[in-house]
Amino acid sequence: MTNQLAYPDGTALDTAAQFTLSALAADPAISAGLAFHEWWADRHRAGRFEVVTIPFSELDKWHFRPDGGNLVHESGKFFAIEGVGVRDGGTSDWSRPIINQPEIGVLGILVKEFDGVLHCLMQAKMEPGNVNTLQLSPTVQATRSNYTRIHRGGDTRYLEHFRGPTRGEVLVDVLQSEQGAWFWHKSNRNMVVRVTGEVPVHEDFCWLTLHQIRALLRTDNLINMDARTVLSCMPFAHPSAPVGPAVDAFTDALLRSYQSPSAGPAAASLHTPEEVLTWFIEAKTRCEWTSRLLPLTGITGWTRTADEIGDDEGRSARIIAVRVAAGNREVTTWTQPLLAPRDHGLAAFLARPIKGVLHLLVQARPEPGLLDILEMAPTVQLPNCDGSATDSGTPFVDEVFSADPGRVRFDSVLSEEGGRFYHSQTRYRVVEVGDEFPVEVPENYCWMTVRQLMDLLRHGHYLNIEARSLLACVHSLW
Amino acid sequence: MTNQLAYPDGTALDTAAQFTLSALAADPAISAGLAFHEWWADRHRAGRFEVVTIPFSELDKWHFRPDGGNLVHESGKFFAIEGVGVRDGGTSDWSRPIINQPEIGVLGILVKEFDGVLHCLMQAKMEPGNVNTLQLSPTVQATRSNYTRIHRGGDTRYLEHFRGPTRGEVLVDVLQSEQGAWFWHKSNRNMVVRVTGEVPVHEDFCWLTLHQIRALLRTDNLINMDARTVLSCMPFAHPSAPVGPAVDAFTDALLRSYQSPSAGPAAASLHTPEEVLTWFIEAKTRCEWTSRLLPLTGITGWTRTADEIGDDEGRSARIIAVRVAAGNREVTTWTQPLLAPRDHGLAAFLARPIKGVLHLLVQARPEPGLLDILEMAPTVQLPNCDGSATDSGTPFVDEVFSADPGRVRFDSVLSEEGGRFYHSQTRYRVVEVGDEFPVEVPENYCWMTVRQLMDLLRHGHYLNIEARSLLACVHSLW
Repeated sequence: MTNQLAYPDGTALDTAAQFTLSALAADPAISAGLAFHEWWADRHRAGRFEVVTIPFSELDKWHFRPDGGNLVHESGKFFAIEGVGVRDGGTSDWSRPIINQPEIGVLGILVKEFDGVLHCLMQAKMEPGNVNTLQLSPTVQATRSNYTRIHRGGDTRYLEHFRGPTRGEVLVDVLQSEQGAWFWHKSNRNMVVRVTGEVPVHEDFCWLTLHQIRALLRTDNLINMDARTVLSCMPFAHPSAPVGPAVDAFTDALLRSYQSPSAGPAAASLHTPEEVLTWFIEAKTRCEWTSRLLPLTGITGWTRTADEIGDDEGRSARIIAVRVAAGNREVTTWTQPLLAPRDHGLAAFLARPIKGVLHLLVQARPEPGLLDILEMAPTVQLPNCDGSATDSGTPFVDEVFSADPGRVRFDSVLSEEGGRFYHSQTRYRVVEVGDEFPVEVPENYCWMTVRQLMDLLRHGHYLNIEARSLLACVHSLW
Repeated sequence: MTNQLAYPDGTALDTAAQFTLSALAADPAISAGLAFHEWWADRHRAGRFEVVTIPFSELDKWHFRPDGGNLVHESGKFFAIEGVGVRDGGTSDWSRPIINQPEIGVLGILVKEFDGVLHCLMQAKMEPGNVNTLQLSPTVQATRSNYTRIHRGGDTRYLEHFRGPTRGEVLVDVLQSEQGAWFWHKSNRNMVVRVTGEVPVHEDFCWLTLHQIRALLRTDNLINMDARTVLSCMPFAHPSAPVGPAVDAFTDALLRSYQSPSAGPAAASLHTPEEVLTWFIEAKTRCEWTSRLLPLTGITGWTRTADEIGDDEGRSARIIAVRVAAGNREVTTWTQPLLAPRDHGLAAFLARPIKGVLHLLVQARPEPGLLDILEMAPTVQLPNCDGSATDSGTPFVDEVFSADPGRVRFDSVLSEEGGRFYHSQTRYRVVEVGDEFPVEVPENYCWMTVRQLMDLLRHGHYLNIEARSLLACVHSLW
């Protein structure tokens, strides 16, 4: 497939430039016959969805194993609720339940050019844990079983574009982690695939430009986590044209942050890519955390009742069970466990122009379920967004909570994955800081440009899911 | 530190070009006052080293834990012998002992220019498991305790060049895995650091060019595993000058394999870097292996006697205990467990020119102790080098064992890490194949250029230790 898009000098636009063009395309070339909001309202009317919490005894096909107490499905597939034990270098070990789902799934967005602008085929998808039933999802969220057994591929719409002989042109393909606080070594394949042929659009799907999707990121609980992580793995070229009539200093610094270092001193990052990797390796070397799976009965400080598994202090998330009835014409019902947080979480980047280039303050942060314990996280990442349960030593919390409203550049409440989490919401915030904020930061923190983060996202297990979600939000700021 | 080396046109040599220059430097600029072989013989005379196997009951400070039976040190430090349980998608699970050593150590080579050529400060180092007492090691092999507590850094010679305010210029810095068959999630920091100031040379150390080290790789059991992995992480520029008076077609294709794809069609790889990553992700997606730590008493098919822990079929490696007495002037003694293979292993790359560019046939291979289960491995990797214990279905074994001797381009027996393995040796082999060998290969295999492997080595957990060792051997072929 030859690419039809070109720069004014005739050279073909590379993938990153095409993503940028789509992000700047104020007028979508296609609107799927309906404006987005009409389609979205229509999808709400079309679906039926009921989720009720039930006692564990009413779970169908799920049971607590007699040896060790893990909560498992009778098929041995899907996922299991097990325990994780953590030594964090402190005086006492700790443990908690954790979701063990060793299969790699695919999160894929199909893209296609209409009138020279890439559009993404997005899905209106129900998930049992969503606070609002429907959220906007990638084209495909497929389990490994869908994905590897091609004969069953028909179960998942559009999967044929992501694997096998009918696959389109792969623009993005990378394994990325999910919540290390609650998943054991989970990773999913984040893909963007371009097609050129005709794609019939099912009623649950809609073509949107990146410009439209970026705007929708500011609506609470609309763009789901799976969509955000795929969006975060797209490379963007520096948007060289002025973005609006009055680009302020923050936006100017933000745009410079997308430039390649080869663009010259005006794109200079505080640290070289090599220095960033060395910083990250040193953080891993210092970190004393180790974690291992335990049988669920082997964790301490947690109690299982008829309805939930909760920590004895009542501060952490609980394991609950739900019954789901869902469908449009045909209704299917099932039961499953979910993890239910007690609070909204918080994920925030502090962002500071350094010599005219915006830098994000990245934290090397351990989580028990991450494959290598540490990944790069937001400046502040907390399980509760009001700071009440914060360790008093958590750095930069004040800057996030007490920021001048004019400096809060992004602030939305977005959902975590509704297939495993019940009503799990996180406040995502980008807060500008100025020259009064020191460039020197504690050893587990590092200033990085957007470009440096995008380059690392070519590989897995550098940025955690919260940092990736926030990066997708940063992409919506220009 | 400004770099004094330059291309003929005056531009500075980058790091990769400086490594290549050192690899081509037939006459070392410095010989440490002694020719290498005199120094080496002298080191043998200077040291005393005795290793005797002992029953477990004579281990000092090590014991089997009453709960679970893990073999641990009383400090809780160093390492432990635990168990690992594996589900590999087959009909029955299996388990074995595994070494759990969660700390990240540093393997570092100090380099310095003498007369414009980089030299490496190599160490004559005794390890209890070495078949031949002394092997040539990196400048530094330091544990995390040495590394992070700077006040104790003095325990390890030259460590001050690798950390803290006196660190030199970091040329290579990456976390890499070790043997996934026997280590649980072990990774070490591979570093190359350049210094410009005066470096006093202790009698156990010697400056060598990469040219000298490459030649010594052909001596059995001389360059140790820790040195090989650091050597493999060095980037080399394309050696553009003719290497010898009569460069044959194989060497010509090998040299092209070092070229950047931007060098044009003559450097073309069969697959793009993006295709290689997608191939690797698909292999991970297909792989059904999961593994987890078990208590040592929880493994099946293994029996502990007074002297060893061995598998009941007598085919796998054994856990034994040794007493060591070592030193030059002062002699220290200690006891420790070691893992003792019964056979020599085999690691072989098949290498084929494709359109004039040498490609290595890389395998995506699961091992229970690897962090993400799969890494890129040699074409053939076996625990026994005569093929006797081979699954009949192992691909490409015949090509390795029955190759025309003229096509065996590299063939040496080299040791695995002597600090944890007892007399563990692997036959490393590079075998040329020609146009009669198909370009189409099974789905878990992929043809890659040397340049593509070097680029992946900028990041951890792509190439396993056997593939990295072999890549260091490939670097010795020009």
